Amino acid sequence: MPEDDDENPISEIRRAIAANDGSALLAAAENVHYADLADLYEHLEDDERDFLFKTIGPELATDVVAELPDSLIEESLSHFKPAQLRVLLGNLSDDDRVDIFQVVSEEEQVRFFSLLGPRDRELTKSLLKYDEDSAGGRMTTQVGRITADMTVKQALAVLRRDREDTETLARIFVIDEQGRLAGKVRLRDLAFNTWDTPIRDILDDADEFTLATADQEDAARMLSRYDLVVLPVVDEFHHLLGVITYDDALEILQEESTEDMEKLGGIGGEQTELTYLNTSAAIHYRRRVIWLVGLAFVSILSGYVMFRFSGVLEKAFVLSLFLPMVVAAGGNAGGQAATMVIRALALGEIGTGTALRIAWKEARVGIFLGVTLGISIAGFIAVILPQFHPEAPTTFSFLKLSFAVATAITLQVLSATTLGALLPITARAIKLDPAVVSAPSLASIVDVSGMLIYFGTAAAILGL
Amino acid sequence: MPEDDDENPISEIRRAIAANDGSALLAAAENVHYADLADLYEHLEDDERDFLFKTIGPELATDVVAELPDSLIEESLSHFKPAQLRVLLGNLSDDDRVDIFQVVSEEEQVRFFSLLGPRDRELTKSLLKYDEDSAGGRMTTQVGRITADMTVKQALAVLRRDREDTETLARIFVIDEQGRLAGKVRLRDLAFNTWDTPIRDILDDADEFTLATADQEDAARMLSRYDLVVLPVVDEFHHLLGVITYDDALEILQEESTEDMEKLGGIGGEQTELTYLNTSAAIHYRRRVIWLVGLAFVSILSGYVMFRFSGVLEKAFVLSLFLPMVVAAGGNAGGQAATMVIRALALGEIGTGTALRIAWKEARVGIFLGVTLGISIAGFIAVILPQFHPEAPTTFSFLKLSFAVATAITLQVLSATTLGALLPITARAIKLDPAVVSAPSLASIVDVSGMLIYFGTAAAILGL
Repeated sequence: MPEDDDENPISEIRRAIAANDGSALLAAAENVHYADLADLYEHLEDDERDFLFKTIGPELATDVVAELPDSLIEESLSHFKPAQLRVLLGNLSDDDRVDIFQVVSEEEQVRFFSLLGPRDRELTKSLLKYDEDSAGGRMTTQVGRITADMTVKQALAVLRRDREDTETLARIFVIDEQGRLAGKVRLRDLAFNTWDTPIRDILDDADEFTLATADQEDAARMLSRYDLVVLPVVDEFHHLLGVITYDDALEILQEESTEDMEKLGGIGGEQTELTYLNTSAAIHYRRRVIWLVGLAFVSILSGYVMFRFSGVLEKAFVLSLFLPMVVAAGGNAGGQAATMVIRALALGEIGTGTALRIAWKEARVGIFLGVTLGISIAGFIAVILPQFHPEAPTTFSFLKLSFAVATAITLQVLSATTLGALLPITARAIKLDPAVVSAPSLASIVDVSGMLIYFGTAAAILGL
Repeated sequence: MPEDDDENPISEIRRAIAANDGSALLAAAENVHYADLADLYEHLEDDERDFLFKTIGPELATDVVAELPDSLIEESLSHFKPAQLRVLLGNLSDDDRVDIFQVVSEEEQVRFFSLLGPRDRELTKSLLKYDEDSAGGRMTTQVGRITADMTVKQALAVLRRDREDTETLARIFVIDEQGRLAGKVRLRDLAFNTWDTPIRDILDDADEFTLATADQEDAARMLSRYDLVVLPVVDEFHHLLGVITYDDALEILQEESTEDMEKLGGIGGEQTELTYLNTSAAIHYRRRVIWLVGLAFVSILSGYVMFRFSGVLEKAFVLSLFLPMVVAAGGNAGGQAATMVIRALALGEIGTGTALRIAWKEARVGIFLGVTLGISIAGFIAVILPQFHPEAPTTFSFLKLSFAVATAITLQVLSATTLGALLPITARAIKLDPAVVSAPSLASIVDVSGMLIYFGTAAAILGL
């Protein structure tokens, strides 16, 4: 959200709303990008929202509504009378319209359908059958379609006729008589060739496409990988249904990154699409509380292990100096491994087929990390600790202690690293989102094993 | 990386390389997207790489080299003779060429400069002066430029002449006689208007632009926010220098997301651009070891607090049952808060100006979370624990214990949540990357305070 200052048009709009000055509001709103207006809308009170939309009217409001977070869609449309709604719903691009139909209540959906023209109604119904997260649920059908037997002149005439309803002309798709995808041309190829050039002479193969039922994330990754402006969406018979555009890809990939990051951080539930500050404390609370309470009860297991080993601790309280270290090192190393693997899975760099190679790589990294940590800590205990605590524990030497702690931390880091890599891959293999393996949940598991490893190793090596 | 199967052209290429069959290799390579060839290249042995590039030649190899990770650039160019290199370097788009000059050694840079034509040499030198992470360092200068006094026919003639050197015609920019950005038109506006239409009648304002010195991330976010295909880059006098395209934005935002996620997970150092499996275990190790060893030594502080309170623990070992829980709950809650705030900062949803509102929101969330946890745990201790451990501690009741643990966990979660939100904002305020506040480092800090809070509260309430 841009910061307010007196110069910028958003401030002008705010002042016009405050002053109830409709003509100033309209003039300012016409100079502002709809994305900024949508941002502003989030921050307005109900009566201010009403004044804004009544003033700018359904034409200008169309793009603003399309840009709003899902949770504000139904409310925002309540500011319009049926005749205005008819205009607004008709103006929407077909993919934005479907998004809106997907989030409003069933009664509103029925009412909105009654306001659509017959063509838009059929189209919206047919798009609603695709899953919200599929390529079909995200595509727009508003794409330039020509056939190979046209000339450049005929193609330009067709495209010009439909241009108002065409979202992008960056790529124009060539279909055969059955409507199947047969190739693509660029608008520049039309603009720079003579009018009598046949389309079949200048068309390129359309090698990249996606099925309508494919995951939107896979489609977005394809756009990104092959630097495409638009990706055609086809059905199982290769009929061209629509396209997904680069801006959809940007949005999808950003959403997925946010989702993965939140899951990794132990935050549950759906993203709200509202900005951080516009999300109420109650919703922030709800998205965090379940993991937090659940993990707290898992931690009682760690506590129980510690309680059971209280005899060992009682014999040598010096062990408490390194208990948090050994336990935490596992959580940290496991979290690092899980983060790397989850991101690599998300970027499509690795798949479940490479599980063994990943496990082998992480086991090597884990053993190097564990040994490094072990040696560092052993050095600290054997050399530095005696300077501060000259009274060595009675039953064993600092050297023996250093060996016990080093062994424990090596085992803990090795096992945590391997587990941190394998759990997300296992999740993917059983069709779960790899990011369900959050760093906190991994930490609470390896906390338990860390307690066992630490006390077990110490008891065995130190003879406690 | 797509999985290998016998049908796909990548497998054909692999077979042709194995069989040393140049003509089969060339035929297969011509049917494969350069992004896939670059992926394959990463997985080849040195002699296979040589055979591949010698066979496909510099023209086909240009896009492949541009797609390779930085660490392979210099090696990949070593397969070409000077005459071939001259072709390859000349074929590169100017932004890709600059990227390559930025990552090769100084001697190679000098040698490559000598292979460039005078125009490309000047251009590359002028682009190299921009920071790698700035909009100027990322832009291409290959953009369609026309003036307002041209007619559509004249504009099309200019664009047609330059079309080979123009990266995108999605937007064509209108400049004045000083070369300053004066507006934009779409190719479709040219294609669908009569040839004698003056450009000034159809040009739109170019409201969105970025300075060449701006951060590439801000530029990418602008492209994303306003759904732009290209964003013009200007100098301080508003001269049009070039454009950043949607595919740059996708790449930049994905890189930044990966970087933030890795930092949050406690992984340091630069991203390698190599895929996970192609990154050696040694590099994986290096990126994790410093944090891991550093945090281990911070954990000794926690251990020291525990050691100092061993008297309290000795009096009531039942306290060890809930020690890991109270400590871990702080790390988890703090990590959740830090994740939310770091992502919101990255998405531009919040700034340092809103620090107080964020702290207030997180404090409320923290108190709700803390009280919920406190009540759950108190209930567990007062009601469920006595069923398993009928022998209550001698000096205090289960009820009193439940009160002490609940108080400690409430304080711990409240303080950790507030800290987790404030540290990233503070980092941003002093111009550090907010994601330096990794979840593990935050956890190791709140581990220390958790130990203090737990033992302090328990000692006070239970009179130990």
